[in-house]
Amino acid sequence: MLSPIGISAQTREEGPWWPHPQWGPEDQAGASNWVTDTKVLRAVKLVKTGKIYELGHVYTRDMPLWGQRTFSLVTPDPYKQFTKKNTPVWNVDYFSGEFGQIGTQFDALGHTGMSITMADGSEKDVFYNGFTRDEVNGSAYGLQALGIEKVPPIITRGILIDIAAYKRVPVLGNEYEVTMADVRGALALQGMQEDTIEPGDAILFNYGWANNWENRDIYNDKSSPGIGVEVGLWIAKRKACLAGADSPALEVLPMTDSSLGFPVHQELLIKNGIFILENMDLRGLAADRVYEFMFIFTPTPFKGASGSPGSPVAIR
Amino acid sequence: MLSPIGISAQTREEGPWWPHPQWGPEDQAGASNWVTDTKVLRAVKLVKTGKIYELGHVYTRDMPLWGQRTFSLVTPDPYKQFTKKNTPVWNVDYFSGEFGQIGTQFDALGHTGMSITMADGSEKDVFYNGFTRDEVNGSAYGLQALGIEKVPPIITRGILIDIAAYKRVPVLGNEYEVTMADVRGALALQGMQEDTIEPGDAILFNYGWANNWENRDIYNDKSSPGIGVEVGLWIAKRKACLAGADSPALEVLPMTDSSLGFPVHQELLIKNGIFILENMDLRGLAADRVYEFMFIFTPTPFKGASGSPGSPVAIR
Amino acid sequence: MLSPIGISAQTREEGPWWPHPQWGPEDQAGASNWVTDTKVLRAVKLVKTGKIYELGHVYTRDMPLWGQRTFSLVTPDPYKQFTKKNTPVWNVDYFSGEFGQIGTQFDALGHTGMSITMADGSEKDVFYNGFTRDEVNGSAYGLQALGIEKVPPIITRGILIDIAAYKRVPVLGNEYEVTMADVRGALALQGMQEDTIEPGDAILFNYGWANNWENRDIYNDKSSPGIGVEVGLWIAKRKACLAGADSPALEVLPMTDSSLGFPVHQELLIKNGIFILENMDLRGLAADRVYEFMFIFTPTPFKGASGSPGSPVAIR
Amino acid sequence: MLSPIGISAQTREEGPWWPHPQWGPEDQAGASNWVTDTKVLRAVKLVKTGKIYELGHVYTRDMPLWGQRTFSLVTPDPYKQFTKKNTPVWNVDYFSGEFGQIGTQFDALGHTGMSITMADGSEKDVFYNGFTRDEVNGSAYGLQALGIEKVPPIITRGILIDIAAYKRVPVLGNEYEVTMADVRGALALQGMQEDTIEPGDAILFNYGWANNWENRDIYNDKSSPGIGVEVGLWIAKRKACLAGADSPALEVLPMTDSSLGFPVHQELLIKNGIFILENMDLRGLAADRVYEFMFIFTPTPFKGASGSPGSPVAIR
Repeated sequence: MLSPIGISAQTREEGPWWPHPQWGPEDQAGASNWVTDTKVLRAVKLVKTGKIYELGHVYTRDMPLWGQRTFSLVTPDPYKQFTKKNTPVWNVDYFSGEFGQIGTQFDALGHTGMSITMADGSEKDVFYNGFTRDEVNGSAYGLQALGIEKVPPIITRGILIDIAAYKRVPVLGNEYEVTMADVRGALALQGMQEDTIEPGDAILFNYGWANNWENRDIYNDKSSPGIGVEVGLWIAKRKACLAGADSPALEVLPMTDSSLGFPVHQELLIKNGIFILENMDLRGLAADRVYEFMFIFTPTPFKGASGSPGSPVAIR
Repeated sequence: MLSPIGISAQTREEGPWWPHPQWGPEDQAGASNWVTDTKVLRAVKLVKTGKIYELGHVYTRDMPLWGQRTFSLVTPDPYKQFTKKNTPVWNVDYFSGEFGQIGTQFDALGHTGMSITMADGSEKDVFYNGFTRDEVNGSAYGLQALGIEKVPPIITRGILIDIAAYKRVPVLGNEYEVTMADVRGALALQGMQEDTIEPGDAILFNYGWANNWENRDIYNDKSSPGIGVEVGLWIAKRKACLAGADSPALEVLPMTDSSLGFPVHQELLIKNGIFILENMDLRGLAADRVYEFMFIFTPTPFKGASGSPGSPVAIR
Repeated sequence: MLSPIGISAQTREEGPWWPHPQWGPEDQAGASNWVTDTKVLRAVKLVKTGKIYELGHVYTRDMPLWGQRTFSLVTPDPYKQFTKKNTPVWNVDYFSGEFGQIGTQFDALGHTGMSITMADGSEKDVFYNGFTRDEVNGSAYGLQALGIEKVPPIITRGILIDIAAYKRVPVLGNEYEVTMADVRGALALQGMQEDTIEPGDAILFNYGWANNWENRDIYNDKSSPGIGVEVGLWIAKRKACLAGADSPALEVLPMTDSSLGFPVHQELLIKNGIFILENMDLRGLAADRVYEFMFIFTPTPFKGASGSPGSPVAIR
Repeated sequence: MLSPIGISAQTREEGPWWPHPQWGPEDQAGASNWVTDTKVLRAVKLVKTGKIYELGHVYTRDMPLWGQRTFSLVTPDPYKQFTKKNTPVWNVDYFSGEFGQIGTQFDALGHTGMSITMADGSEKDVFYNGFTRDEVNGSAYGLQALGIEKVPPIITRGILIDIAAYKRVPVLGNEYEVTMADVRGALALQGMQEDTIEPGDAILFNYGWANNWENRDIYNDKSSPGIGVEVGLWIAKRKACLAGADSPALEVLPMTDSSLGFPVHQELLIKNGIFILENMDLRGLAADRVYEFMFIFTPTPFKGASGSPGSPVAIR
């Protein structure tokens, strides 16, 4: 098993974690490759009633934002076509802000890289599949590799793991790190086993943290429950396509090991190409005890963006 | 049958086209109400192979834009956490522009209203279901009614009507108005009849116009093929949930009757709450002759926005 | 003397306060017309030492903002020209926000209008010199009349009236309305009389409120000292070119008469074309007891903007 | 005399061009340090008539823009205070774009750096006064050193050098490099000599290029007249505070030596802290043969911005 950090030497051609033997050195689609047509069919067949669950929040000016990010939507002065008999009037909104990294958000593989030591001793910033910072960045106008437009629609089998229910609390404590024991316990309570997870699944963790969404002072970027490296490694091993949660970072904040910066993001996005979906709202699924479903998230392909907002849904 | 324009008197309580008897005077969801759980199940059952078709374009800085609209995505200077052992580096994009009215775009019901004469002789700007301009507008920070957040995910049966194939051309001529004879002819060629359309369906028209997407001089807001009022009235009568096309306006540009401004938008959005999806790319479906499918569009709920970008998909 | 509100009848041609007999019915430059070449010379001659005082604040992400306004400046990823021998690297900032209405801000005449009753009984929204809302607004892309580009550089004689010094406090109390007695007292303390004000002067009021600039909770849009209608009428009578202060609104917040909305703005901008400069920092001038000086503010002419940021200066 | 490029070794403490002996290793104000109170007085005394010349263009949506930059100003839906007796209505513009690097623009010292070889053989990106890229960049939210807020108002003696008049053309040819012979010839024609330039002066070059401002196809970022390294070195030697011109880059485009990227920017901004003002309009001064004047440019201090728009003026 790989250590999540401290890799001492890596080469472009044959490092411990790239190129991904499955998908080749040019791959930019990551774990979405697990989602084949057959997998889509598998997901479709889970639909029994046609009931749709919306798994995201509405994006508002006063929602919790990471750091100093901006959500600014203005409504320009409506335009009225006075010269036409039917005099239509038009509204067109104008938005500015960190588009793909606010509210319910899906991380593209270009969202994060890390500095590693190469075999020749040099330091290099690398992203998924060994793409370097020079290959990804260097333009003011969008990422040149690993942007959101490289990600296909994610339509797959979804699994909810309700940690809050297992712990018998409405909301996990802030700073609580979810363990593998919790994951196994929650699955067992749901009548599932660890190996219920199949390649390409979207795994969603319910911490109950969405209950704090309306309270920006509590729901912030400093302190929230989440998984740690232990569960991150398990997700990778299970070959999930995506991991999501109802918290700002999926992983616990602050990090249990304060010397590390977002090790779960590294394990998933950088090393394994597994996408992350944050700030979800899983209360509907949890309330109805829906643990297996058709999952849909269609990233908006703004070329070169590091992520996407959107409206993830489950259908059962 | 209502005239598409020239309504001489309307009242808030009992005008000819509101409140919608089906959904009540407070309704803001429009024709998405046709999409019940049963309808979703109906759509799901159309999936046979699990193949996904992406029906939108990638959003780029140089794509065709309506009028003077803006697509500006910048990549801020990456942030590197030097103090952490694993030194992650972060990319977060920043966007500004007419978010919901650029590229492949879905119109919310607050996108357009029209001026009408009330029973007392006064003029009033009204939107879907009789919402007035004062109820919809009046804030600089988003629509106060009929914003995109009022629209649920659209997951329903989709129908492609391939007009270009029927006319035996790769691309319809600009300024060509698609007629009901074209629609019936295309359906017949596809082995379908007019009454194949069921309440809540998403009807997509292929004009072949997406072939011009790379050429901003041709693909513009001045001149393109599309349906006219005749087909618009038929869509309303068939109780569609959504009408989409691979052109900037769905309806023909310029209007056949130059005294009118976007009469199809009025017929669909204002009078019937039927959503419009523009600048699609239907070439994949057309090439594979896929005419009936599971259709998915999940609007991104930026509160108070007049529309949404996104990635519409078909699954067959 | 005009009442500040409640005008019962006004005509486009000969209302009580337009067209301005001095400047004609097409004028959009307002009280800047008082600043002739001779007036500029008058200002220049006040310079004795060459010392420059900066009268504005630095604009920052965490400065006090009115309502829900936005100041968002991001630094895109630097662009490095690797193909050039000298390998330059470039920074280009990207800003979004209410450009002309944040931080130290200068109001253009199109910033505010008011609803009045016309001679025929109808209601109309009008701006300076009788420009109507239809003439000013109606485009999403900037004001069509009375935008900031109609205002020339303001280089004129400046007068500081230090109300805080007269009241012997570092900061006036919030909600304190500055009276004409205060103005006369402050002028007297400065060895000046009321008639020291000449047509075209820029009158700056020091309330000491800039001492709260670093504290966004105190320095807000709800409660601050300022002049009221009494002093506003005096400024108009003295034919000032501009009135400025170190507070968010120049006028007292909340209004002394709570049934009115910003009556001083109406008196100055709408009726008299006198510009307003808010959120200044006059501490340097006050500390040095500089009461008469060359004043400079050069609006940035973003076409159709309702105001301008900038850096007002005094030279003595 | 320094070579403009090819410096082979530089140290942080005692390289050939930093720290600036005049202003110390922490200085971020550059050549604005030449503008003392005495210099301001010198400038003021040049005013004879009080006539103001505006030396910039109005900023519009369709003005020439460098590369893919954005100027997007929208006017939000006006806000009307219906609950107030006087019913004011408010306009507040919203802007997004490369604020300080569009239209008439003033470069801050953090706008550009260059890669140099240090004494130990390593490569480093450095800016004015030896500030490194790590010191300047590294935040998404503004430059951390050498931002526009470090630059005081520039009020000094201005000199116009009318190259177009000397060459007896309304507009210099595109790609024409202005030589020292041209500069001396133009000065002589104006009755001035080379040593008329004093430390702290603002030197403005008239190429006539502003005559192309309305034609975005001609006035672009690819091909325009300008000074080269020869004149750049002379400006530095004369200890100017600022160099401006009526062209996109001040220096000739493309570079005469195509292996170099913007060597004049390096000579002025990086090595000497001399500010650059581009896209000016000097036609008024040239027409009136005003060659010596009081010059004013007051940068708008958006914290961390790499430049500023504004309205430069001359008074004579």
